[in-house]
Amino acid sequence: MTELTTQQAVVLEQPGKIVLTNVSIPKISDANEVIIQIKATGICGSDIHYYTHGRISHFVVKSPMVLGHESSGVVALIGDNVKTLKVGDRVALEPGFPNRFSSKLKEGRYNLDPDLKFAATPPYDGTLTKYYRAPKDFVYKIPDHVSFEEGALMEPLSVAVHANKLAKMRFGARCVVFGAGPVGLLTGKVASVFGATEVVFVDLSETKLERAKQFGATHTVNSGDLPPGVSVESVIRKAIGKKDADVIFECSGAQPCIRTGIEVCKAGGTYVQVGMGQEEIQFPISKISTKEITLQGSFRYCQGDYSDSIELVSTGKLSLKPLITHRYQFKEAIEAFDENRDHPLDNVKTIIEGPE
Amino acid sequence: MTELTTQQAVVLEQPGKIVLTNVSIPKISDANEVIIQIKATGICGSDIHYYTHGRISHFVVKSPMVLGHESSGVVALIGDNVKTLKVGDRVALEPGFPNRFSSKLKEGRYNLDPDLKFAATPPYDGTLTKYYRAPKDFVYKIPDHVSFEEGALMEPLSVAVHANKLAKMRFGARCVVFGAGPVGLLTGKVASVFGATEVVFVDLSETKLERAKQFGATHTVNSGDLPPGVSVESVIRKAIGKKDADVIFECSGAQPCIRTGIEVCKAGGTYVQVGMGQEEIQFPISKISTKEITLQGSFRYCQGDYSDSIELVSTGKLSLKPLITHRYQFKEAIEAFDENRDHPLDNVKTIIEGPE
Amino acid sequence: MTELTTQQAVVLEQPGKIVLTNVSIPKISDANEVIIQIKATGICGSDIHYYTHGRISHFVVKSPMVLGHESSGVVALIGDNVKTLKVGDRVALEPGFPNRFSSKLKEGRYNLDPDLKFAATPPYDGTLTKYYRAPKDFVYKIPDHVSFEEGALMEPLSVAVHANKLAKMRFGARCVVFGAGPVGLLTGKVASVFGATEVVFVDLSETKLERAKQFGATHTVNSGDLPPGVSVESVIRKAIGKKDADVIFECSGAQPCIRTGIEVCKAGGTYVQVGMGQEEIQFPISKISTKEITLQGSFRYCQGDYSDSIELVSTGKLSLKPLITHRYQFKEAIEAFDENRDHPLDNVKTIIEGPE
Amino acid sequence: MTELTTQQAVVLEQPGKIVLTNVSIPKISDANEVIIQIKATGICGSDIHYYTHGRISHFVVKSPMVLGHESSGVVALIGDNVKTLKVGDRVALEPGFPNRFSSKLKEGRYNLDPDLKFAATPPYDGTLTKYYRAPKDFVYKIPDHVSFEEGALMEPLSVAVHANKLAKMRFGARCVVFGAGPVGLLTGKVASVFGATEVVFVDLSETKLERAKQFGATHTVNSGDLPPGVSVESVIRKAIGKKDADVIFECSGAQPCIRTGIEVCKAGGTYVQVGMGQEEIQFPISKISTKEITLQGSFRYCQGDYSDSIELVSTGKLSLKPLITHRYQFKEAIEAFDENRDHPLDNVKTIIEGPE
Repeated sequence: MTELTTQQAVVLEQPGKIVLTNVSIPKISDANEVIIQIKATGICGSDIHYYTHGRISHFVVKSPMVLGHESSGVVALIGDNVKTLKVGDRVALEPGFPNRFSSKLKEGRYNLDPDLKFAATPPYDGTLTKYYRAPKDFVYKIPDHVSFEEGALMEPLSVAVHANKLAKMRFGARCVVFGAGPVGLLTGKVASVFGATEVVFVDLSETKLERAKQFGATHTVNSGDLPPGVSVESVIRKAIGKKDADVIFECSGAQPCIRTGIEVCKAGGTYVQVGMGQEEIQFPISKISTKEITLQGSFRYCQGDYSDSIELVSTGKLSLKPLITHRYQFKEAIEAFDENRDHPLDNVKTIIEGPE
Repeated sequence: MTELTTQQAVVLEQPGKIVLTNVSIPKISDANEVIIQIKATGICGSDIHYYTHGRISHFVVKSPMVLGHESSGVVALIGDNVKTLKVGDRVALEPGFPNRFSSKLKEGRYNLDPDLKFAATPPYDGTLTKYYRAPKDFVYKIPDHVSFEEGALMEPLSVAVHANKLAKMRFGARCVVFGAGPVGLLTGKVASVFGATEVVFVDLSETKLERAKQFGATHTVNSGDLPPGVSVESVIRKAIGKKDADVIFECSGAQPCIRTGIEVCKAGGTYVQVGMGQEEIQFPISKISTKEITLQGSFRYCQGDYSDSIELVSTGKLSLKPLITHRYQFKEAIEAFDENRDHPLDNVKTIIEGPE
Repeated sequence: MTELTTQQAVVLEQPGKIVLTNVSIPKISDANEVIIQIKATGICGSDIHYYTHGRISHFVVKSPMVLGHESSGVVALIGDNVKTLKVGDRVALEPGFPNRFSSKLKEGRYNLDPDLKFAATPPYDGTLTKYYRAPKDFVYKIPDHVSFEEGALMEPLSVAVHANKLAKMRFGARCVVFGAGPVGLLTGKVASVFGATEVVFVDLSETKLERAKQFGATHTVNSGDLPPGVSVESVIRKAIGKKDADVIFECSGAQPCIRTGIEVCKAGGTYVQVGMGQEEIQFPISKISTKEITLQGSFRYCQGDYSDSIELVSTGKLSLKPLITHRYQFKEAIEAFDENRDHPLDNVKTIIEGPE
Repeated sequence: MTELTTQQAVVLEQPGKIVLTNVSIPKISDANEVIIQIKATGICGSDIHYYTHGRISHFVVKSPMVLGHESSGVVALIGDNVKTLKVGDRVALEPGFPNRFSSKLKEGRYNLDPDLKFAATPPYDGTLTKYYRAPKDFVYKIPDHVSFEEGALMEPLSVAVHANKLAKMRFGARCVVFGAGPVGLLTGKVASVFGATEVVFVDLSETKLERAKQFGATHTVNSGDLPPGVSVESVIRKAIGKKDADVIFECSGAQPCIRTGIEVCKAGGTYVQVGMGQEEIQFPISKISTKEITLQGSFRYCQGDYSDSIELVSTGKLSLKPLITHRYQFKEAIEAFDENRDHPLDNVKTIIEGPE
């Protein structure tokens, strides 16, 4: 490994243009770092968003950037102060590294550190390379019976775990999940493992709703296919015993879902905004007051979420396998991105293997 | 008292029409009740709203209703099981009575009981009468050095106390209060007593902002009178040390304030929606996620809020007197309402004395 | 039912003496009450304690008292304001009724109401009769597939649910339960359902530890049967991955267990004192400070605990059946108490059926 | 500064023996460090404890150790990555540095990091030298109107702030503080600023209790000087309105205080163990259960506590000056320690100035 200085990478050159090109192989610059040889990477909606639009919110792709941040691999090299990992360890990678002097970090919320260096969020390069460098404590061993593909998907799973913790999910909760994409599916399933006794998924796609049955759905509601005169609110309420819901997970970012979510959230209930979609919507603010709703934003994940994700999968309480619908070789990465962009409904989770 | 069966009351006959008319004098129907002789009543924005529009949200005035719910008085009669109050006690009245079998009550959130009987919220009559009946535990003794006027204003003060508790107000917090009406003023002042070290008030009225200086304001921002090219966000941030705020109290219900509030709320911060104004607004939902904001609705008050309010005033930590700008006799009640409706800016809090 | 005025009851006449004797049949005295025909009652350690010692803490049996508080039955009569129950409904009974004007009730902690009227806690009569009166909201319907025996055991299950809520039990927690009696078994099992991934039971009885395997035990430790030189702390730590525990449930009240519990509780961990045993012990207070432990007392149950218990059992997530080791007819009640007193180790839970 | 390589230090050579001797001047070893020239250092009870006993709990002085950890000074040198401090800045020093990769740090509780390097806790040297090295984010600017002496005492003040945060101190709380030493005084005063309306100090020394009146005491109780037949519990309850207390701060570590504290803590109340004294005591564990008390250990301080302390002092809400009873020059340090050891009652806080 030490002889070569460059490696292939999946680089977004500019919006709409991905290339396979050579970048430098990272070196250990600090005794607490490790180098990981990447074995599997999931494609995330944000990768596709940067591909097509070149920006998300105030993050703008201004120069070529390596894509990918849902990755797992094998430890290839360790710094002198690394005692808990050894070369050859199979690992999942948490892809955002906080400033060690950040007050947010010391408050227990490093996901909100303004200086967080997050893979494939501009200007930081992502993981779709052979070798990737990370601090030792953001690299988590996975057991042998957990595959690299599953290891890669600890990333979206951690988003779901984080949202459930912010929701203070508990036994007996009646939940509604809007949006049955990867994050919605995982959020609903985590809710189920964390104790929710009703998990209603709402989506427009029958295919997605069908899949939700493998992810904890006790009921599914196709909001695009209701009988005339029947409201989605009434169908949701009927599903959970003619009551309003204890917890709403909004994973679509779409105005109709957000509005329905606020409507079916009980007085004193919790609504978690997990998904990002429309930046601005028409919003019934007065209902927040009169129902004394807690509307909680959820952003990525922080301390404890990755280890919980790994425990969920390794104990068999949650399977990531039904999430994976497509697999590509590293050399087919451009095709993988195009397919994902062009057929979003068919793709739940695409894994890019390798590189070798 | 026992000989008469009717008493004068301030009755909203229909939207736009208030009359002074006779209603029945209440009798004790349960050994845990007391009858209060009303001595002072504040006019609330909701009274005016029912007067002019006949409804607030789904509460619609369908038949004549006695107005008033911010009241104090003297205990005139007590039921057989009342041991903690005696005839002649000077008291403040908490005007919403929950169902004693409500699960919300037993959860510690009786303000969210769907069966709450709240004075002057349809269909329940209000307090603008001579005698008013209440359960013993919703009637609070006030010390001799606290006036009846102040006793009446324990009601809006409790709204402010409740909002601060939901905000988990703490020493050192940097707060912004939008809207310097009665609830905004009290919310800011309670924040200050509860430990906030910066309290920025934002309003369009210089008169109101001037008054805010008696209510804990460390800075005031007239959002309608900024130099060209200067944003209200930048002025707020400058006031609190070039930082975003820890806690936002939105007491205006106006779209520009709500949007500014979300904008200047720090990552991981708390935004409390106290005021009700526009039912629907254009809302930057994606910022809730990316900043992981807790947007908390606040509705009225619950256990402990009234007693805290009385302690705030009786210990001298907070004065309600600067809130009172107008006083009327009971027989002038219609004039009081009209004046309040017609000159909202000049009126902070109008007190109707008596009746005798 | 209305013709008879007396019914048989299991009465503790004085410490050491239980009789079957006649007491009055209760009448509905308030429109919100119901009369339940008792179908099954569990014997609790506290019943036995009153039987043998005549007191628990400051509760002293001064006059004859009906025993029993873990009961289920059928609704026999309802008051005029009872809409959610009907005659014939199969129900579990929550046996402590708070003062409706209590501030603790309104704070959400009615278990701490000093005026709580708790069945078979002096001076209040218990449930071991044919007919028992209760307020409508402390009577919970149970589904047909849940037996009366299980309905009776919702009471100790609610103790376990309450302790887990106070422990903020969460997915991935490593727990230790001291004492594998009924409450310990249920507490460990609830922890498991609420997400604990390690549940270590510690007891002196191999029989009890064997039973714990049906109640969520991932490991059992016989603290009376360790190899020479091996500490119970080291065995516990080894069981949970050479770490200290996240949560301790102390359900024995015995000094050695309490001390071991504090010892193996991690820095920042939670220790819940559920069981009552020795009133006074030798205690390592300085470790509470240096490890910043949260030592939380848990007492009975409050709002939401009974409904969670019923949901745990009716959804099949927790079975109460393995708890029941002995059954007696109502007329054999004295024998049941004697057997329970004399052979505590063999008895997990004794059910008294009926009376007919 | 760079020419000299050694500096004088106050060194505990062995239990009972302190010497002024030469140690190495620290060098910046990391670009995020600063060197502080120490200007004032408070003597803490732990310094005296190591002096007399050579150990506290499992921390044992095995080789000579520089004493002192309550210090302030001036920035003398900064590393290349230090942007928020400059040479000449007047600063308070937080004297415990966590491992940056610690999970406790990332959870928001770095005070519980097992690898914390704390000044003058063996084996780490303390601050009683001319130059002391610290990471940039554990060094806090103090305003010009805050003296170096006050800057040094931010350390015990942070202990008090931390304890109050763990107690969830709030407006209206009725508190009892056991032990009117430096930490007790500061804890009571912080409680008062954070909103406590009653602060009862309990101690055996009239001198100390007299001083408590400058630290928020609303009542003082001399538990060693009560009339015959009057219990300390009854006097405390009488002081706070014939009620039990909402919050207990136990800052003495003495068995009688701990027992009284549990006794007067209300059902559902919070008891915080701040002080360390006796390692083992006779303890009424059953009252923890029956009153459902939260007994919370408090250890040092963590993120936000130092900055709150500085804000408390710089805004004038709390004065540290009445705490300082003795001052010594650096060359008199041995005398300062001896005096402190020999006359603990007279000494509240001793400051060692310099060295020059």
